[in-house]
Amino acid sequence: MTPTQDRPALDRLLSPRSIAMVGASNSPTRIGGTVFGNLLRNFPGEVYPVHPKDEVVQGRTAYRSVRDVPEAVDMAVIAVPAPAVVDVVAECAALGVGGATVITSGFAEAGPEGRALQDRLTAVARETGIRVIGPNCIGYMNTHGGVMANFMLTPDQPMPEAGPVALVSQSGGFGSYITNKAVLAGLRLGWFVSTGNEADVNVAAVLRHLVERPEVGVLLSFVETLRDPEVFVDTARRAAELDKPLVLLKAGRSEEAARAAMSHTASIVGSAQVLDAVCRQYGVFVASTMEELLDLGTIFQDGRRAGGDRVIVMTSSGGAGVLLADEAGQAGLSVPELPQDEQAALAADMPMPFYGSTANPVDTTAQTTAMPDAYRKVLNKVAASPSADMLTAVTWAGPGPANDAIVEMYQTTTKPVAILSTAWSPQFQQAGVPTFTDPCRAMVALAALARQSDRGPLPPDPAAFAADAGRVRRVRELIAEAGTETTLLESTGKRILAMYGIPVTREEMVTGEDAAVEAAERIGGPVAIKVMSYQLPHKSDAGAIRLGLRGPDAVRAGYRDMLDEVARRAPGAAVEGVLVQQMAPARLELTCGVQRDPVFGPMVAIGLGGVLVEVLSEAVLLRPPFDVDTARAALGRLLGGRLLTGRRGLAEEEQRAAAEIMTGLATLALELGEIAEIDVNPLRVADGALLAADALIVVNHD
Amino acid sequence: MTPTQDRPALDRLLSPRSIAMVGASNSPTRIGGTVFGNLLRNFPGEVYPVHPKDEVVQGRTAYRSVRDVPEAVDMAVIAVPAPAVVDVVAECAALGVGGATVITSGFAEAGPEGRALQDRLTAVARETGIRVIGPNCIGYMNTHGGVMANFMLTPDQPMPEAGPVALVSQSGGFGSYITNKAVLAGLRLGWFVSTGNEADVNVAAVLRHLVERPEVGVLLSFVETLRDPEVFVDTARRAAELDKPLVLLKAGRSEEAARAAMSHTASIVGSAQVLDAVCRQYGVFVASTMEELLDLGTIFQDGRRAGGDRVIVMTSSGGAGVLLADEAGQAGLSVPELPQDEQAALAADMPMPFYGSTANPVDTTAQTTAMPDAYRKVLNKVAASPSADMLTAVTWAGPGPANDAIVEMYQTTTKPVAILSTAWSPQFQQAGVPTFTDPCRAMVALAALARQSDRGPLPPDPAAFAADAGRVRRVRELIAEAGTETTLLESTGKRILAMYGIPVTREEMVTGEDAAVEAAERIGGPVAIKVMSYQLPHKSDAGAIRLGLRGPDAVRAGYRDMLDEVARRAPGAAVEGVLVQQMAPARLELTCGVQRDPVFGPMVAIGLGGVLVEVLSEAVLLRPPFDVDTARAALGRLLGGRLLTGRRGLAEEEQRAAAEIMTGLATLALELGEIAEIDVNPLRVADGALLAADALIVVNHD
Repeated sequence: MTPTQDRPALDRLLSPRSIAMVGASNSPTRIGGTVFGNLLRNFPGEVYPVHPKDEVVQGRTAYRSVRDVPEAVDMAVIAVPAPAVVDVVAECAALGVGGATVITSGFAEAGPEGRALQDRLTAVARETGIRVIGPNCIGYMNTHGGVMANFMLTPDQPMPEAGPVALVSQSGGFGSYITNKAVLAGLRLGWFVSTGNEADVNVAAVLRHLVERPEVGVLLSFVETLRDPEVFVDTARRAAELDKPLVLLKAGRSEEAARAAMSHTASIVGSAQVLDAVCRQYGVFVASTMEELLDLGTIFQDGRRAGGDRVIVMTSSGGAGVLLADEAGQAGLSVPELPQDEQAALAADMPMPFYGSTANPVDTTAQTTAMPDAYRKVLNKVAASPSADMLTAVTWAGPGPANDAIVEMYQTTTKPVAILSTAWSPQFQQAGVPTFTDPCRAMVALAALARQSDRGPLPPDPAAFAADAGRVRRVRELIAEAGTETTLLESTGKRILAMYGIPVTREEMVTGEDAAVEAAERIGGPVAIKVMSYQLPHKSDAGAIRLGLRGPDAVRAGYRDMLDEVARRAPGAAVEGVLVQQMAPARLELTCGVQRDPVFGPMVAIGLGGVLVEVLSEAVLLRPPFDVDTARAALGRLLGGRLLTGRRGLAEEEQRAAAEIMTGLATLALELGEIAEIDVNPLRVADGALLAADALIVVNHD
Repeated sequence: MTPTQDRPALDRLLSPRSIAMVGASNSPTRIGGTVFGNLLRNFPGEVYPVHPKDEVVQGRTAYRSVRDVPEAVDMAVIAVPAPAVVDVVAECAALGVGGATVITSGFAEAGPEGRALQDRLTAVARETGIRVIGPNCIGYMNTHGGVMANFMLTPDQPMPEAGPVALVSQSGGFGSYITNKAVLAGLRLGWFVSTGNEADVNVAAVLRHLVERPEVGVLLSFVETLRDPEVFVDTARRAAELDKPLVLLKAGRSEEAARAAMSHTASIVGSAQVLDAVCRQYGVFVASTMEELLDLGTIFQDGRRAGGDRVIVMTSSGGAGVLLADEAGQAGLSVPELPQDEQAALAADMPMPFYGSTANPVDTTAQTTAMPDAYRKVLNKVAASPSADMLTAVTWAGPGPANDAIVEMYQTTTKPVAILSTAWSPQFQQAGVPTFTDPCRAMVALAALARQSDRGPLPPDPAAFAADAGRVRRVRELIAEAGTETTLLESTGKRILAMYGIPVTREEMVTGEDAAVEAAERIGGPVAIKVMSYQLPHKSDAGAIRLGLRGPDAVRAGYRDMLDEVARRAPGAAVEGVLVQQMAPARLELTCGVQRDPVFGPMVAIGLGGVLVEVLSEAVLLRPPFDVDTARAALGRLLGGRLLTGRRGLAEEEQRAAAEIMTGLATLALELGEIAEIDVNPLRVADGALLAADALIVVNHD
């Protein structure tokens, strides 16, 4: 065993010090020839071709098999026909190879036989500890380590310039497409990894590995299926901790996978919403287009951060200024008017008569742009303005003194800069000036940068969550009362909610008219009465509810009438008792609950409730665990913020109460994995307090 | 007078047969030199320089003044200092010149003095009939007529290729920026007109002129302030009639201009929403970014139309296929799975073993792309598929057989094609192949094309609206009852609404308890009573309302109690009577009304009402006149369609009733210009019917 074997296998796989390639070819048009040619380009260590017949491959002595290679290499690239792959990987593992990059196709994507082959490959990785990228991938590139283990370029094409940006893509084809675009856009890509079928290593694992590498400053990712959500969340937390932006482009958003949905609120969430919510919670940027993925890479690659959200816009066209200011506002940035003294200083450099503006947007007019000295002075003053945290300037691509001045300004200031240009320009790319070709895209990028610069505290670590064992035992006793029933009685559900600090209506479970009357008197005021029966989870459909009963006579009459109606309409229903319940007033009704996403597990949702729940479908989602501040911030996003700012919206203490209900639900969902679904609807809001008036809990007895 | 003077002045201005330039210069670095050099480039007619001293300007005999020019030219370009401009234009008008393009700055953009100069310029245009473009503009380009009356290019830069796309921009600077980008993107720009300060001719007028020109197929426009909304709407109707797409990019969307707002629903609309609504109603595309403006130009310039919304996606990367299918769905297009026979035909051309997909997205895999014959065959079959109306294919920029095959396919098929490429390519641009650099942008463009292809009937012509004079007289009599009050009594408002077919609650205006009791008996069921007073437009604030009174005692008690409370809380309020009103049941509450936009005039709005009106702010807007079908389609957009599809949403007959209420409000707003605002809130929905339960009408007595 060589010393390099002391490193973790994934590290050996992605940063090898020696490489073998099984399936290396002398033919430049074959994949095995292209990949081997690429391996030879920049790699400082040994690269051993393995070939069944040829003595020499592309100038290197070839070996008959991996066994014959003179050392246990860190990484083997494998490009042999699919049926041979598993044995080669197993052989590598036995020889102490760290990892394999399997280029070959014909696995899970090719039907049941391929699926079986891939399962065997997964098993070899699990059993031996060798790490495997692929199969059916385009390979990877690690420019810092000189590794070009891929066929996304041919050996005669120029290498991307090494830099802080890492791109991880499940899709090899589209990953290399994005790489191509990224290089055109001036991104300095230090890493590109395609994971293909993900028999072993997946996107989350690669991101988790790369986030720790010092040369990586920005992580971009394109995924179709997000596997290993815990690793993904952990990566996101770590990326936030290290202040390395993580940007995700997700395909397959429209697929509405089989997914446990909340009974009353089936329309509230789709899984793309869950992904978006989780990403937002953990500070991951979700790019809505491929170009946005690259735009965020562009703004983040120089590592600059902003002290606030104030943008200064400099342009020689009033129209462009107005459009940029619009887009800034749309993206959530501010474009403050400059104070008089700054404006006077700018005006002093403008040619006379001056028909532009010094307010912000600073409109220099075309006349100033044509005067190199004036333009340079104004630009540098603008960049130095204490009234702005970021700078946008508009220019035309092509050489000239204005663009020279922009490069000089960029190199002088430490503020984030986004230049709007008619096209990419070699001059800007060489100098690393972040360049955008559309006003909206420039501002979306700056807004992301402002968000990254203003990160709050790290969200709680899911791994650190500790359950309250005593409470869990008590809840399980209550659940046990339901026997094999999966939907708990409302009365039971509310007792459970109360154990997590969720305020519920005052209520008593009774049998008989007299007991109901007595309970109503103890509760006080008008009451509701409801039949509790496992067969009647939707009470109003069976007439199993009476509302607003005031006084003994009304309670008595309502009780009799209700039980008669239930006996008539649902003769088979076994009545467990009658719940006598306080009538809760409401200025506003909310609905909240828990549902389990097939990828991310339990998610707490809160949204508008009441009669409009059928026609509305807006909710915010949070993944447990989270703290009260996070919950309050989430409430602030409901209805575009109007739930808090609207005249009848939530008051301060109501917001706190709602946030505490959300954290209570979160703890409940984490403590009891068997709870499949919770639906609190309505959650009645009045006079500074919230009250759960109905609750449905569904358990999974498996 | 020469024969050319028979043409309309705007036609002479934009398609001149002879040109003079006042302020032509021999210095190539001066604007007067650049513009004159441009004028000489391609213009087939005479171009006369006017210069105070030089005998010859750029090789042409110069004239001392416009008077000395040997003919009354169609168009004069004016680039003299601002103080001299008005006199020159007046002189041109006196000499029979058709129009002037005023390049000079220093008018309204330069303060009060400039503003006064510009007003004089406007007056000259109005009084003499000469048409004026500018001042403070960059000029215009009419490649079809060989006119380069601008300084957006220097005479040594290549001319844009003539074509069907016209760009009209208020901003000269940003207009030429867009032009620059448009040429890079492969747009064939036949026209570019900048209107600058719009002393006379504005963007709407230029669009109205260009829409009729046979060489113009697509109209793109960038505006900051939209003047002449009637001309704009008329242009939009004409563009729809001629099937010429009109695309608008609007800056200044965030400015919330002073604007009459509906009293309860101030948050419902901003003026950008009004613009969007009007554009949607008249078939105008609103681009959300500059690049989208160009993307729509790209997809529209070949004039192809789609037979439906089905897209077929061909790619060699599964990941790209999924992303494109997502974006297609997001944009409202469908990506149907191909039928088995078509799939079999495609599979027959694929290399074996084939690990891609023939379903749609058709994933050829990189292997097929590397085999030119197979790729060409598959591509042509895909383009010929009877299952798709449009085609997207993914490629890498650069020469090669795959891109040759794409050009050949594009020239063979008549279907709309959108190619996703890593970059613009000269090969595609020469062949006119619509190319996009982002999956989302490609699909947004195809969706716009599908919408343009599936236009409904033309909206009614506002100019053709005819008022019902008898009804108008009767409404004015009712309004007169209010004297100088601007907010009508609810009782009056509802009588007016009823005259326009809007169903209102059964109700009677009474004085005294006995009369109230009798009225309640005639109306039947529980009633509401409300104090009618001009001083109490917001009744509940003053306790001027009682709800749900059932039987004579309750009505009598409520009446007394209510008047006591009003006397106490609003002692100064003069009571005109008490309205006794049917209680209207409601499953759902809507709110609808009319407000006047400062640009587009009356707009009918409908949205969700009831207690949530404070926290929600979604509404759809229509500009009168419109028909019932248009109103129903608008309802379908409320809450993302859920108002119609939700389980408690509007039933068929309720939709019809709502649409008829909207057309009733539209007629009312058009017939009575003095009605500033109507607010029907709530509009109660139950059992197939809608009922206006309250109504506020504000009139303007000026």
